[in-house]
Amino acid sequence: MARTGRRPGNSGSREAILEAARAAFGERGFSDASVRDIAVRAGVDAALVHHFYGTKEQLFAAAMKLPVDLSVAMPALLEGGVVGLGERLVGFFLAAVEAGGDQNSLLALIRSVASHEQSAAMVREFVSKAVLGPLAASLEMPDPDLRATLVGSQLIGLAMVRYVVRVEPLASADSAAVVAAVAPTIQRYLTGELG
Amino acid sequence: MARTGRRPGNSGSREAILEAARAAFGERGFSDASVRDIAVRAGVDAALVHHFYGTKEQLFAAAMKLPVDLSVAMPALLEGGVVGLGERLVGFFLAAVEAGGDQNSLLALIRSVASHEQSAAMVREFVSKAVLGPLAASLEMPDPDLRATLVGSQLIGLAMVRYVVRVEPLASADSAAVVAAVAPTIQRYLTGELG
Repeated sequence: MARTGRRPGNSGSREAILEAARAAFGERGFSDASVRDIAVRAGVDAALVHHFYGTKEQLFAAAMKLPVDLSVAMPALLEGGVVGLGERLVGFFLAAVEAGGDQNSLLALIRSVASHEQSAAMVREFVSKAVLGPLAASLEMPDPDLRATLVGSQLIGLAMVRYVVRVEPLASADSAAVVAAVAPTIQRYLTGELG
Repeated sequence: MARTGRRPGNSGSREAILEAARAAFGERGFSDASVRDIAVRAGVDAALVHHFYGTKEQLFAAAMKLPVDLSVAMPALLEGGVVGLGERLVGFFLAAVEAGGDQNSLLALIRSVASHEQSAAMVREFVSKAVLGPLAASLEMPDPDLRATLVGSQLIGLAMVRYVVRVEPLASADSAAVVAAVAPTIQRYLTGELG
């Protein structure tokens, strides 16, 4: 606790918070890591963490260098209603993964999830809270949570084959063609018969 | 070349061949690694490699401890025709991944593919040759190769979410329910409109 309240310069505090957040999320998972704990590790007040980075979800996104703010993007996607949501989701996902090219941190996260049990737990909790939860809550259908995870399965598989393993011709296919091919899958998982 | 032709006992030769195969596939990829090269590394004749393990595809499957012989399974799946192929493919895939539980080598392969560029290349070549190629060749539709890779994207994503990251409720869902939910996706990728 000795370092609590120490205030280095703004940019030093910001970087210290992100480092502390990565350490805390990595050790304790998304759910169990607290903003208070992260603040203590960074030697700053919790209020400063919120001031710089907003909610715990937003702090996670910043620490993992995610290219989108899901607390803004998810409501924007969902407020259009379920009609056409499959297409909007696939388009949004491709744009997010393609942002930044090879340096994209979403792909780094997908790689780490596949190989590290700890990363898997951390990302599972975050994705459940920030993506799958809001998505399921927006569906007025039976089995909303199963539907949301089926959507996730197609999107993560698309990222694996297209961007990580890069299997042709899907790796080089036009984004619009990929959206057209995959959107009906997502739409059926969201609002169709699951069999 | 000094070790060529040396013949340790049968079980020693078998293990030496598998070790040599893993090394060769890892270093050179599936396409460029040759049975001849693997035989030389193992200190045996190429004929013995074929005698013990059959084709290069079968040797790869044995070296990677894959739970199925795709040179038998793929023709069996495809000979039933495209009607119901989506359901048969998903059922076969779930059974293959679930065989052996946590020790399953398919999951190990999926994990390694996500994190190692070299594994990705090796598995991409093998899967293209042993799975996607025969699947695409069986489709009398436009864009057969794109269709096969879309099928692969849903199946690998299903494995990631259900078995690797284990996101609920998909992780614990009944296999029959998963087949029912995902089969129409696979069937559309195989024989439906891609948009």
